Amino acid sequence: MEKIAALVLATAVVIAWIAPAARGEVRSFQWKVEYIYWAPDCVETVVIGINGQYPGPTIRATAGDTIRVELENGMSTEGLAIHWHGIRQIGTPFYDGVPFASQCPINPGETFTYEFVVDRPGTYFYHGHYGLQRSAGLYGSLIVDPVPSDAVPFTYDGELSIVLNDWWHRSIYSQETGLSQLGSAFRFVGEPQSLLIEGRGRYNCSLIPAAPSSPPLSGDVMSCNSSRPQCAMHALAVRPGLTYRLRIASVASLSSLNFLLEGHNMTLVEADGHYVTPVEISNLDIYSGETYSVLVTANQDPSRSYWAAVNVRGRRPATPTGLAILSYGDGSSSSAPPSTPAPQSPAWDDFAYSVAQARRVVSRPGFQIPLPERANVRLMLLSTQNRIDGKIKWAINNVSYVPRATPVIAAFQFNLTTAYDLAASPPRDFSRGYKIRNAPPNPSAIQGSGVYTFRHNDVVDVVLQNSNTLVPNNSEIHPWHLHGHDFWVLGYGSGIYRSHRHGSTLNFVNPPMRNTVAVFPYGWTYLRFRADNPGVWAFHCHIESHFHMGMGVMFAEGVDRLPRIPAQALGCGYTKALFTAP
Amino acid sequence: MEKIAALVLATAVVIAWIAPAARGEVRSFQWKVEYIYWAPDCVETVVIGINGQYPGPTIRATAGDTIRVELENGMSTEGLAIHWHGIRQIGTPFYDGVPFASQCPINPGETFTYEFVVDRPGTYFYHGHYGLQRSAGLYGSLIVDPVPSDAVPFTYDGELSIVLNDWWHRSIYSQETGLSQLGSAFRFVGEPQSLLIEGRGRYNCSLIPAAPSSPPLSGDVMSCNSSRPQCAMHALAVRPGLTYRLRIASVASLSSLNFLLEGHNMTLVEADGHYVTPVEISNLDIYSGETYSVLVTANQDPSRSYWAAVNVRGRRPATPTGLAILSYGDGSSSSAPPSTPAPQSPAWDDFAYSVAQARRVVSRPGFQIPLPERANVRLMLLSTQNRIDGKIKWAINNVSYVPRATPVIAAFQFNLTTAYDLAASPPRDFSRGYKIRNAPPNPSAIQGSGVYTFRHNDVVDVVLQNSNTLVPNNSEIHPWHLHGHDFWVLGYGSGIYRSHRHGSTLNFVNPPMRNTVAVFPYGWTYLRFRADNPGVWAFHCHIESHFHMGMGVMFAEGVDRLPRIPAQALGCGYTKALFTAP
Repeated sequence: MEKIAALVLATAVVIAWIAPAARGEVRSFQWKVEYIYWAPDCVETVVIGINGQYPGPTIRATAGDTIRVELENGMSTEGLAIHWHGIRQIGTPFYDGVPFASQCPINPGETFTYEFVVDRPGTYFYHGHYGLQRSAGLYGSLIVDPVPSDAVPFTYDGELSIVLNDWWHRSIYSQETGLSQLGSAFRFVGEPQSLLIEGRGRYNCSLIPAAPSSPPLSGDVMSCNSSRPQCAMHALAVRPGLTYRLRIASVASLSSLNFLLEGHNMTLVEADGHYVTPVEISNLDIYSGETYSVLVTANQDPSRSYWAAVNVRGRRPATPTGLAILSYGDGSSSSAPPSTPAPQSPAWDDFAYSVAQARRVVSRPGFQIPLPERANVRLMLLSTQNRIDGKIKWAINNVSYVPRATPVIAAFQFNLTTAYDLAASPPRDFSRGYKIRNAPPNPSAIQGSGVYTFRHNDVVDVVLQNSNTLVPNNSEIHPWHLHGHDFWVLGYGSGIYRSHRHGSTLNFVNPPMRNTVAVFPYGWTYLRFRADNPGVWAFHCHIESHFHMGMGVMFAEGVDRLPRIPAQALGCGYTKALFTAP
Repeated sequence: MEKIAALVLATAVVIAWIAPAARGEVRSFQWKVEYIYWAPDCVETVVIGINGQYPGPTIRATAGDTIRVELENGMSTEGLAIHWHGIRQIGTPFYDGVPFASQCPINPGETFTYEFVVDRPGTYFYHGHYGLQRSAGLYGSLIVDPVPSDAVPFTYDGELSIVLNDWWHRSIYSQETGLSQLGSAFRFVGEPQSLLIEGRGRYNCSLIPAAPSSPPLSGDVMSCNSSRPQCAMHALAVRPGLTYRLRIASVASLSSLNFLLEGHNMTLVEADGHYVTPVEISNLDIYSGETYSVLVTANQDPSRSYWAAVNVRGRRPATPTGLAILSYGDGSSSSAPPSTPAPQSPAWDDFAYSVAQARRVVSRPGFQIPLPERANVRLMLLSTQNRIDGKIKWAINNVSYVPRATPVIAAFQFNLTTAYDLAASPPRDFSRGYKIRNAPPNPSAIQGSGVYTFRHNDVVDVVLQNSNTLVPNNSEIHPWHLHGHDFWVLGYGSGIYRSHRHGSTLNFVNPPMRNTVAVFPYGWTYLRFRADNPGVWAFHCHIESHFHMGMGVMFAEGVDRLPRIPAQALGCGYTKALFTAP
């Protein structure tokens, strides 16, 4: 509803800045974010919707277009920010949507205008990046088509798109509170109640203890009704003989997912907005924050339908298969749910299977972005689970990230040295003797808000090193997502990374570019990126509760070249010191 | 944790401003607000706590003291503000704690310092004033003792203090969402599940459909366990023969309450911080936002205990009696719960009883503040329930108040005319022909954010006129609370107020001063105040859902004399336009 007066000026500045890159159209959206009642898995509760719908509207644009979203915060007391996952925000780092990194949270009643160029075709999505709001339903698809003159290295007859998710009945407030409890009172969010395909799942209503009466006696679960249209299964409608590009994204809060189409193989052709060498697969491991395109040919008996299914892998599953219908034809009996059982995925703990599939994803000849020959910076980042002041946290090189109330980008632009020690860096390495197969021996990690700083065009290597959690003989998958960048994935390995032993195993030939990559249990993942995008960029585990518990770091790069932060992105924390009396 | 750099300067300014009034000590508190698991009525859910406790800590001070609360917002995504109910904030209108009226909401991670003088003795409290956060448990007691040299017109041997409340199991997010639904999807918050005395009640766990399993299947209700210490009954411990001053406040979200002590009469001596002519009562009607002191003499059989009880009046009750124990002695059998049945209050719909009790509250000779002889401004404010754009709202003279994202006080101080039309006033009267006993004939009320403006030292009369709701033959009690002021209550009446008919019934002799006053069904209430406190002051129904649905107005007075707003209170909405590039 309201616009910020200062924005008029600020926007003009932005447009001037991005004008050289913006060769396409401006696509404008007006969104209002507010709580709605919704029943994604037939269990009705409160969900964060956009313009009254869940999931949020799909943004579809062409490479080079400018996306302009006037985002009204219609919630009552909660701040808001939306991250445009996979969009690098070149020249607009203040529109990356990370509260206290790239902007102040948008207050209730404010309208914040995101305006950025989608410079490359690909499959992307957007989601709330504040607290656990993504888990409350704040997300949607963002698909960028190539300009007609751009080559696409495969052909298809039609497109389909789905977002995968896991879903809880407990509110994000209760989930957050559980994560912050002291000692044994800690309550993890636990395994999800449902898996959703395009925002739809099906909970077994008989498991709800009793129909909640009115007034409700069971918290916020209002009702469970499996015939609600909101939880009708999503249908992927195909025509016999045609080939489809199926875009798949995962916004899962916790789960490593495996997607499969009953009776149909898939050809993997795109990952995180980059074309990859085609790979035939019968099922797809997809981690939170990743996107893929697969080609599917409707070459099976068209008189029946088939399951599209998603299962949990990587953690012991306690959630039924999420289902949608792959339907031949248009509304005939072939669109009814199949009578076959739900398809199964590989064993949840077959990590070798997962690693092998990850390694098959390599860049596509002719679409490679040249890899810088060597890095001039290297970070060795060890993830550990620790107890800090009696609470369970995740830490990177013994520092558990905690956001402060001032956007890091503003601290650099305005030299707000009371907000952050801008000169200090968190540790760039960890003790060589660390035993990653033991539970952390030293529980004295700290909380911190330090920032890793790079010079413009530094080439940065990062080794993400996994380890044992606080539970003996347990190590978990972590999908790490980097903002503002894609990175080359040079390799995955088991155990502790050692240059002399593993350096030669890295893939310098056709490493894929990604914005999200998994680190497997007890393993390491090696990646490289060029710090060519002035801004402040979060780099974190995309598991919602893990980032909330500190599993992330901040990268600041080219801070001497930051574009001017618009006033609408300020107003919190120490940026209040910038007020001047009229 | 964090402090705002600009605050150092701002605080200095404030202290200089209030120094003339601040004759007492500075009492400093450091509070962290965050969600906690708590079981106020034995049903465990998430509650907003302060320093890990619910209700919040009691503030105890002496008249003339300065209260300094460093308030850290430890919530994850929610803004925060605390209103100091009954404290007039003379010279510190920006510390009144109303988001978008007196300040910007405090962002997560920020620490905001409230600093104000408690200039008069009395029974007060504090509570969250953002969204429905008060309903989520954010409140506590604030008691101001007189300086030793000040006369107190009654004596007593000891003090006791309780806050009354009503309580729901459904989260405030779900409650808010229900209030905003279109048409027949509207879901009112409904009658409370429990009534709490000093934050403690007792829900019948057998009414919870089943013990929620793990992971919880029933939303946020984690467990119900009637032996939890958190829901052990509050005990009022007295010694035989002594007389106690019992301070009673109501922060109820919805309910008009009636409080009584089994077997004991009470003598009403204080209302909203003002001594009143003593009244003997056997039970006390108390509306949300009101405080009272009663004197109670422990003159009954000391070998047993007695019930302290609270019941719903004014609405058809659907909530069990809230109970505490009036306990003689110290830990003997006399502190066990009585075996007698819970005491009953007068019939819920005996409104004549309620009006009669309200009329018995008059000022105490010797402690009267002289009533200005006449007013130079009069507002006739008609409350109606309306449908606006398909949603049910409350409106005042056909305008339903909706906050905007810019603090009104900042709009006046910095002349932010894009935020508000500062010259316009909402209607000061309503149509003479309005039929208050009919459901609203004209559903075309509007939403607005207009401000009533008064000159410094205007004397303002307000007639609060009640009417029929959208439901035929229904009119409800509304306790109206004025910020920044006390007012003289000149009278209550039935039907529509007419000067020629009712003017002569007003009490110009010993009207009580209050900050909260009830308007009874189909009735009017007449009050007067002097606009001698430069600031912006909310005046609203203290029922949480009613204010949320628009039942309030804003008063701006002496805006040419506003003290300088500290930077920590700014940063939202159009105040971002005040940023200046370094």
